[in-house]
Amino acid sequence: MQPDKLEQYRPIFFPEAIAVLGVSGEEANAGARFYTSLLKAGFQGNVYAVNPRGGEIDGRPLYPSVSSIPHPVDTVIIAIPAMHVPTVLEECAKKGVKVAQIYTAGFSESGTEEGRRLEAVIVEKARQNGILIVGPNCMGVYSPARRLPYGMSNYAGEVGSIGFLSQSGGLGGMLMDMGVMRGLKFSKAVSFGNGTMLDSVDYLDYFAADPATTVVGAYLEGMRNGARFLESAIRVARKKPLVLWRGGRTEVGAKCAVSHTGSLAGPDALWSALAQQAGAVRVFSLEEVVDTLLAFQVLERDPGNRLAFVSGLTGGGGGIGVSASDAFCSRGLQLPAFSAETRERLTRLLPPAGTVTHNPLDVGGQTIPMESLFQCFLAVVQDPAVDFLVFHERTGFFMQPAYTARVEAVNDLLITLKQTQDKPVVVISPAGTAENERLSTGKKLIQAGIPVFSTLEGAAAALRNVNDYWAAKKNPEARIQNSE
Amino acid sequence: MQPDKLEQYRPIFFPEAIAVLGVSGEEANAGARFYTSLLKAGFQGNVYAVNPRGGEIDGRPLYPSVSSIPHPVDTVIIAIPAMHVPTVLEECAKKGVKVAQIYTAGFSESGTEEGRRLEAVIVEKARQNGILIVGPNCMGVYSPARRLPYGMSNYAGEVGSIGFLSQSGGLGGMLMDMGVMRGLKFSKAVSFGNGTMLDSVDYLDYFAADPATTVVGAYLEGMRNGARFLESAIRVARKKPLVLWRGGRTEVGAKCAVSHTGSLAGPDALWSALAQQAGAVRVFSLEEVVDTLLAFQVLERDPGNRLAFVSGLTGGGGGIGVSASDAFCSRGLQLPAFSAETRERLTRLLPPAGTVTHNPLDVGGQTIPMESLFQCFLAVVQDPAVDFLVFHERTGFFMQPAYTARVEAVNDLLITLKQTQDKPVVVISPAGTAENERLSTGKKLIQAGIPVFSTLEGAAAALRNVNDYWAAKKNPEARIQNSE
Repeated sequence: MQPDKLEQYRPIFFPEAIAVLGVSGEEANAGARFYTSLLKAGFQGNVYAVNPRGGEIDGRPLYPSVSSIPHPVDTVIIAIPAMHVPTVLEECAKKGVKVAQIYTAGFSESGTEEGRRLEAVIVEKARQNGILIVGPNCMGVYSPARRLPYGMSNYAGEVGSIGFLSQSGGLGGMLMDMGVMRGLKFSKAVSFGNGTMLDSVDYLDYFAADPATTVVGAYLEGMRNGARFLESAIRVARKKPLVLWRGGRTEVGAKCAVSHTGSLAGPDALWSALAQQAGAVRVFSLEEVVDTLLAFQVLERDPGNRLAFVSGLTGGGGGIGVSASDAFCSRGLQLPAFSAETRERLTRLLPPAGTVTHNPLDVGGQTIPMESLFQCFLAVVQDPAVDFLVFHERTGFFMQPAYTARVEAVNDLLITLKQTQDKPVVVISPAGTAENERLSTGKKLIQAGIPVFSTLEGAAAALRNVNDYWAAKKNPEARIQNSE
Repeated sequence: MQPDKLEQYRPIFFPEAIAVLGVSGEEANAGARFYTSLLKAGFQGNVYAVNPRGGEIDGRPLYPSVSSIPHPVDTVIIAIPAMHVPTVLEECAKKGVKVAQIYTAGFSESGTEEGRRLEAVIVEKARQNGILIVGPNCMGVYSPARRLPYGMSNYAGEVGSIGFLSQSGGLGGMLMDMGVMRGLKFSKAVSFGNGTMLDSVDYLDYFAADPATTVVGAYLEGMRNGARFLESAIRVARKKPLVLWRGGRTEVGAKCAVSHTGSLAGPDALWSALAQQAGAVRVFSLEEVVDTLLAFQVLERDPGNRLAFVSGLTGGGGGIGVSASDAFCSRGLQLPAFSAETRERLTRLLPPAGTVTHNPLDVGGQTIPMESLFQCFLAVVQDPAVDFLVFHERTGFFMQPAYTARVEAVNDLLITLKQTQDKPVVVISPAGTAENERLSTGKKLIQAGIPVFSTLEGAAAALRNVNDYWAAKKNPEARIQNSE
């Protein structure tokens, strides 16, 4: 069944030719924005614009209908008023269209009788004609391998391993925007809005089967069938990490979800129970989704939960060690004591005053030579009690990119360290007055397989989530539910 | 007593002439960095450099001793080896020095008998000679009104109303760096390290009395005397908000604090009890300190806890409404239903499809005219159930500063709104691919009295903290302790 799904969904994620319906010359017109976005992102297929009035847009033809396009079309993006969608679907079927991605809102989520009726009609038409509907009320598909941009974003980023499904087009976009900034790379993503024909379970099944996807994230506001959802979630989590963000866990949030995507959210305890049974990781904010996906993307296997924390080279020092201990230990990670041998090695390497040779390790200001610092890193990762290294760095201080050259030199050491031994390396680089330096130095680390987090708490939560996933995989019974 | 303290501590925060002891020509020399930092920041007083070898630094004299400076000196910054500090203090006393800010480490925090002995000696010498010691093992004082920079930062920012005391010099610096970026303005700050002579309680008493300080924040790793600490905390919180971040709440964190500042942290429950009894707000991370101080700085009075949330103009929309409801309501804030009148006004102003006229309000994409948007803002803040407005905006989308012009136009509306009525206005602007645009548009809002937060959770936690402070002030019995 699963290989079939991959084949059946192929035109969703790898369309050959897309027609955008509802393209006009007005600046704010959604159809026009989808259309130009495909062109600007360099979509690797043909793109056609449709408007019943005909004419031209930017020197290219506006076809009066899908059927008047003199080339094959396998996917349409529909951005016309809801009441015209049923007729258009019939025409699309005649043209041989396989997938209709429906941006248009005003269906069941409107809460009106007419909206519900229209939604039933389009599903009926699509079923009769062998068309798959993505949406309605959605931003649709992102497929960087095909340079298919997300929504109207003009942008297709690098191809990666994260598959993401989102009931919210806006949050999906925010996640990808924040994610791109943080170094997330997607295999595919889909905003499916009302999910009237293909629902979360269908996309979960697809991502479970998709060999290009090794980590799966989801923003969901509701589920139609708990048992079916659990089956699909288990199917994913057995093979790859599954990160679930559920919107609507509070009463007001749940009410809001009804009018947003027509979702009945279900009690929050049900979601926790489902996540736990499936061996999925439940997260509670946009930032936690991004942090957790980043950790899974970069740390391909179980990193363990015993870390060595190193700081002090570029500010922070002792106080950061204290607050890092609090952040990690309160979330169930451990900072084990270093062995006598490690402490001896560190004592030989570090100046006596202002440094502390236990875990967390404070290397004490800016005077330590680079070669000694590398030996310190080596000493702590070679300690048998240590599973991975967390280094805390700062790129600026009071409006000045004070440390950039030194930070870059240290980052080169960390990259060498990562490349020359097996234990993972993680960096914390907090926001401050030197944001440009922070973002650019961070990029190099991420490319080298070192995840970079902005906050201690974010890093700790993400690493705890990673630990939870692997613990559940090893021993489903012993899984301790991630507490918020 | 309190006016005395203000006068007694005057040379700590408003020195007339500073001598830096331990200035050499080496690049990494701490004394030299303190010295040049004072010059670069434009310290409004005289600055002298001292080194027993004499000579010159950057064309200015290196005095061989404090006593050889041919001008009055009221404050010294000491960056010489610990063992020489006692002798130097005697010489300083003869010169009429009132304050010794001791950067040098290697005292009680070293855990050695010799360190403890030396610390006792310097306190004895200082007491005998009427000198106040800030530190030792500290970064010292920040006083923007005098252009006295923090530590070696070269920078004195705008004068503001926040007083901050920190047992950690590094965390104090990080807080100020992140704070400056986020729009925090300080009246004074002090990193006091081992706090051997002047402790947290002394600085709390000072900030309680200081009329220029209207909000007080503290990073602390220990307290010497719970009863005395409670007295001082009550003294502050009765007059102005007090935000407490305690490092060392986990076992490893507490151990680390001992070696960092020699602090015995005490059980965590004690800190919660003290904060609760004092009517102070307890926070749990660097980001929460900054968010909470920002909220107090900008919202000068009790903002209430019933908010109207508006999004959708620049991405996010319905999904953001759902997750905002979750973030705020799970932290005890409320999104009340709009009145029938408000909903009618909104229905007339907004297009029917893709918008939602309840709270959270989704204004639905980019087509709404600016004048209508302003009327929407007015409608929701004029609703009697609404205490304040939270607007969610985005400055970028997939590597493009896509919305900057529109965001700036909307921000101008928000500033007008803020200026023309009484209810507070708060903005959420999440991190993404257009960080420069985000930081620059945010600055303008903060200057206009609109606090800007990066995350829903950060804003919710900060506003909850503000609510907790005012609730405790009104009714100490009813105070619900902020849960982590």
